[in-house]
Amino acid sequence: MIRIGQIGVGNWGKNLLRNFTGHPETELVAISDTSQYVMDNMARRYPQAELYPDAQKLIRESGTEAIVIATESSTHFRFAFEALEQGKHVFVEKPMALVPEEAERLAELAALRGLVLMVGHLLMYHPAYLKAKELMDAGELGDIQYMYSTRVNLGVVRHDENALWSLAPHDISIALMFMQDSPESVVCTGQNILQPGIEDVAFLTIHFPNHRMAHVHVSWLDPHKVRQLTVVGSQKMVVVDDMEANEKVRIYDKGVDKKVEFASYSDMLTLREGDILVPRIEMREPLRLECDQFVKSIQGGGPPPSDGTNGLKVVRVLAAADQSLKNGGVPVEIG
Amino acid sequence: MIRIGQIGVGNWGKNLLRNFTGHPETELVAISDTSQYVMDNMARRYPQAELYPDAQKLIRESGTEAIVIATESSTHFRFAFEALEQGKHVFVEKPMALVPEEAERLAELAALRGLVLMVGHLLMYHPAYLKAKELMDAGELGDIQYMYSTRVNLGVVRHDENALWSLAPHDISIALMFMQDSPESVVCTGQNILQPGIEDVAFLTIHFPNHRMAHVHVSWLDPHKVRQLTVVGSQKMVVVDDMEANEKVRIYDKGVDKKVEFASYSDMLTLREGDILVPRIEMREPLRLECDQFVKSIQGGGPPPSDGTNGLKVVRVLAAADQSLKNGGVPVEIG
Amino acid sequence: MIRIGQIGVGNWGKNLLRNFTGHPETELVAISDTSQYVMDNMARRYPQAELYPDAQKLIRESGTEAIVIATESSTHFRFAFEALEQGKHVFVEKPMALVPEEAERLAELAALRGLVLMVGHLLMYHPAYLKAKELMDAGELGDIQYMYSTRVNLGVVRHDENALWSLAPHDISIALMFMQDSPESVVCTGQNILQPGIEDVAFLTIHFPNHRMAHVHVSWLDPHKVRQLTVVGSQKMVVVDDMEANEKVRIYDKGVDKKVEFASYSDMLTLREGDILVPRIEMREPLRLECDQFVKSIQGGGPPPSDGTNGLKVVRVLAAADQSLKNGGVPVEIG
Amino acid sequence: MIRIGQIGVGNWGKNLLRNFTGHPETELVAISDTSQYVMDNMARRYPQAELYPDAQKLIRESGTEAIVIATESSTHFRFAFEALEQGKHVFVEKPMALVPEEAERLAELAALRGLVLMVGHLLMYHPAYLKAKELMDAGELGDIQYMYSTRVNLGVVRHDENALWSLAPHDISIALMFMQDSPESVVCTGQNILQPGIEDVAFLTIHFPNHRMAHVHVSWLDPHKVRQLTVVGSQKMVVVDDMEANEKVRIYDKGVDKKVEFASYSDMLTLREGDILVPRIEMREPLRLECDQFVKSIQGGGPPPSDGTNGLKVVRVLAAADQSLKNGGVPVEIG
Repeated sequence: MIRIGQIGVGNWGKNLLRNFTGHPETELVAISDTSQYVMDNMARRYPQAELYPDAQKLIRESGTEAIVIATESSTHFRFAFEALEQGKHVFVEKPMALVPEEAERLAELAALRGLVLMVGHLLMYHPAYLKAKELMDAGELGDIQYMYSTRVNLGVVRHDENALWSLAPHDISIALMFMQDSPESVVCTGQNILQPGIEDVAFLTIHFPNHRMAHVHVSWLDPHKVRQLTVVGSQKMVVVDDMEANEKVRIYDKGVDKKVEFASYSDMLTLREGDILVPRIEMREPLRLECDQFVKSIQGGGPPPSDGTNGLKVVRVLAAADQSLKNGGVPVEIG
Repeated sequence: MIRIGQIGVGNWGKNLLRNFTGHPETELVAISDTSQYVMDNMARRYPQAELYPDAQKLIRESGTEAIVIATESSTHFRFAFEALEQGKHVFVEKPMALVPEEAERLAELAALRGLVLMVGHLLMYHPAYLKAKELMDAGELGDIQYMYSTRVNLGVVRHDENALWSLAPHDISIALMFMQDSPESVVCTGQNILQPGIEDVAFLTIHFPNHRMAHVHVSWLDPHKVRQLTVVGSQKMVVVDDMEANEKVRIYDKGVDKKVEFASYSDMLTLREGDILVPRIEMREPLRLECDQFVKSIQGGGPPPSDGTNGLKVVRVLAAADQSLKNGGVPVEIG
Repeated sequence: MIRIGQIGVGNWGKNLLRNFTGHPETELVAISDTSQYVMDNMARRYPQAELYPDAQKLIRESGTEAIVIATESSTHFRFAFEALEQGKHVFVEKPMALVPEEAERLAELAALRGLVLMVGHLLMYHPAYLKAKELMDAGELGDIQYMYSTRVNLGVVRHDENALWSLAPHDISIALMFMQDSPESVVCTGQNILQPGIEDVAFLTIHFPNHRMAHVHVSWLDPHKVRQLTVVGSQKMVVVDDMEANEKVRIYDKGVDKKVEFASYSDMLTLREGDILVPRIEMREPLRLECDQFVKSIQGGGPPPSDGTNGLKVVRVLAAADQSLKNGGVPVEIG
Repeated sequence: MIRIGQIGVGNWGKNLLRNFTGHPETELVAISDTSQYVMDNMARRYPQAELYPDAQKLIRESGTEAIVIATESSTHFRFAFEALEQGKHVFVEKPMALVPEEAERLAELAALRGLVLMVGHLLMYHPAYLKAKELMDAGELGDIQYMYSTRVNLGVVRHDENALWSLAPHDISIALMFMQDSPESVVCTGQNILQPGIEDVAFLTIHFPNHRMAHVHVSWLDPHKVRQLTVVGSQKMVVVDDMEANEKVRIYDKGVDKKVEFASYSDMLTLREGDILVPRIEMREPLRLECDQFVKSIQGGGPPPSDGTNGLKVVRVLAAADQSLKNGGVPVEIG
């Protein structure tokens, strides 16, 4: 049994807690949260766990093997760094840090100490997205040329981070996973409507090598609830729609056939409408699969797909995007 | 009866032709097209019309009062200018011209001669968009803060202009109509996949005064067919979905109520989920309504909403967007 | 060129007229309609056709080879019979007649004279339904066990026939085509809301041999517009949805696997969720394909699928269903 | 605190258990189930509850005030009767019994002893259906003329009861609630495909006084998952769609305006297409609301809407429907 301490058990933290307490190979031994109300609630529901008002004390004294961090983003780096220094495996919610330098220090420290550092890029463990990945890896789509995703709803309006930092990590992590390459530059525009300085909506273009690109639209001020990704390959197109109950992935055998034999340039492109396949997907809760991966990695199963290096890449895109956003969309290179 | 000559009766031109020949107050007297196949076909179907292989000759000699231009974009300026010089009223398909200077010359010439110059910004005559406009004008939505539209499908792939010039004029004309202001700058990214130098997909941000913005996503290489516009107001949100057969407009009484009475900043924003109203819309063919407007304007009913000035504004946005697009998304000011 | 005379050129008749006038192998030479307004309109639009206020005179004197009948149902038998007696091929709208005896006389007369008698069971020529048929014929669905269809909307409310006679012929003709068997009995319930004695909604169960059944729900007083058919086979299920623009057919690889190896009865049935396939269908206007068939049959291509015998079968089901309906749902055998 | 004992904690029973253990005014003190596996599981999860392999013993000896019964339908009567005889309040899952006589005995016994007897007609506590009811009660729809509901999916295939008994109680209870009248007769057809004698699909017509009717379509062998109810009133129509996440109720201001002033009968009916309203509904878990009602009724809040009398009415419809079904759709009067 892996002894786990969790810092932050609020909105999303609750779900992690539920999974780690229900997991056959983990034992939740310590909890910390800044809210007294939450802590009282925890005392009743998890009498077996020790409660630490001071997160740092939890990290140092609770006798845990792994620390789960689901606090406000601004504290991710601090708690993760401390935990790694204390020799703990770390699961930290996205974004891993607020600046690339800090993300880099975390990744390096974990590597140096031989510890698991895993970031909560949930969609990388989601069966529907993995199904799409499987199709790409099998060459079904041909060359991946372009993708775009939309993540909007009338949702939680944060006052400590904008919609870009709050929502886009998911889409960026998927773009990196599907493009299998390092982004070159970004362009990001957006608008703050509700609160000064905090963008409620953002449009992000990520340029990848070989003239490929991914676009991300995020907003928490929208009448629709959309979680949709479209990938255009040279052979087929695939759509992942997480709002669909049963038909989350659709494979479109449609595209454009280039025909070179014709003399006239205008005859070169022929549209191909084809069958659509909705593959059966064995759905399991993505969060459970994510927690399984953390356990497996701690048990020596190798680094998780969303390891420190991956987390760093996502932070680099976010930081560059935010810089572009604050400067009216000026393109920003990614080092 | 208004005597009309039409130049270009291909894909879209056919539809204009059908409307002007069926209209009780217009008479189609002359046709010109570069395709011999099309001209032969016209000879059979419209024996009453004169056929002019030479468009310029049609403008000068056919005894028309008005000229309808539905040719390739690169010829719009030339034919429209010639027609205005010859004292004809002009209906020209969008985009009015390929550079702002030419659009400006057209607008000036029409004004000078007191002629009607109308651009085919079809959606400005579409009952669903006009319904949304009516709601805005009545103050139902509160302040218009932000809007975005999507116009994608697996469609006609052009080789003479990119998806931006081909598809975005519609969305830009609507953004101008709804924002009721002149755009300040644009940021545009995109990607060419099928043909070198011709973008198949484009993402365009238009910045308006007072920190408002409109975003446009266009593509002719997409598995979905989407024609959707979302407008976020301070009171309500409205969605126009032109792919819906009967429910083209939805009004969402949802939004964010700012509450200033609370001490804690984090308590200031409360989400409001409310009723949704799908208003009954009296649908008529937008193209027919557009043609009606042209007739009415010629008969002295005042300039059309999509007059030369409006057409010029759209071309300015397109030209700036294209410049941004060719430069990797660099923001471009609109003079 | 087949010389055609058409009786009845109202709502639906217009569409037949358009197809037969546009067809390369037919020539519309005579028109009859009871409405003077319609006849005046026809005089303008089809100056080449002779107009006959008297339908019987058209049949006898207009020098036609084939007669198309799109009048009120109560006159179908009379005009079709007269036309066949005069040696004309006949296309008659559904239902072929209002009583089986009359339908039988038409079928017999056509057979006796060697004339084409075709009924307007449009869906039998609809590419989506034919695609479903093709799948069945290929054995993809396994044994066809059960089917049901829904045909409801807020539609034309007739005062000369109820929703059963007006709408259900389509569904019955498809049930006969898919079940490939003669129905044994029917049960039909319904309700008249708007007009005394004229049911606005009807629910029809058709029992086929081997304990199979088809259910039909029709209504012209419904908030939805639905045209959907579901077929359950022992291997797969198929859905035809004619309101879908592009995805009219869906094949569900789902069903119930019977497992006999288990001791416990309750373990015998395992649900199988599987892939869904949306096959590409080459859509053409069903009415055009129907008219093509009429032409082909006249030219010696063999009887149409919706010939007199088929029309008779549909009328038998309708008549039995109406009898059940008028008697509160009492089962009625089909002779 | 109301001391509760529950018999049957399988598939659906689990959900009741979860609600009664989490409820602030109930205490789960005893559990009985026929499965040893389930009982072992319960021992771990609810150590505070006593386990009774013998349900009868639980009823008699566990010191409870109320008994919750979620067993197979065939045992509902027996356990409910025993519990009432022992002076316990009873919550029993639908159907209350398998024959009207037994249902009647339960209703009488509860009345005689002054005990709460409540049947699990869940939809009667569902906010969306209650919203529809509220609209009807306010006269918004005009006279309720006709309704139909569909409850189909690829679901649990039972071997102890058919789809009619398993699924239709929900729709019947709603039909009774909306029609506010006692049904006169039923017609039911259906088909058994998977198992001999157990219908997988059923179509039920319920005739109400004043020529009104409700139709119910249930199936557990269907590619779709549908839970939809349509109510046609003389003024408006309302649709409840429980598969919609957020838009469960739609009110259609469409219908047929009868115009009597016209001379010609055919001009009397004019279709009215109007606005559609999707009202905001405060959703809570229907099961929780149902459990709240049971608690409230025990605490003296009056009988629940789904009391013994209501349960009896539903059983009468089910029994008559089953008789009709077994006899090929013969109409069956309801005493």
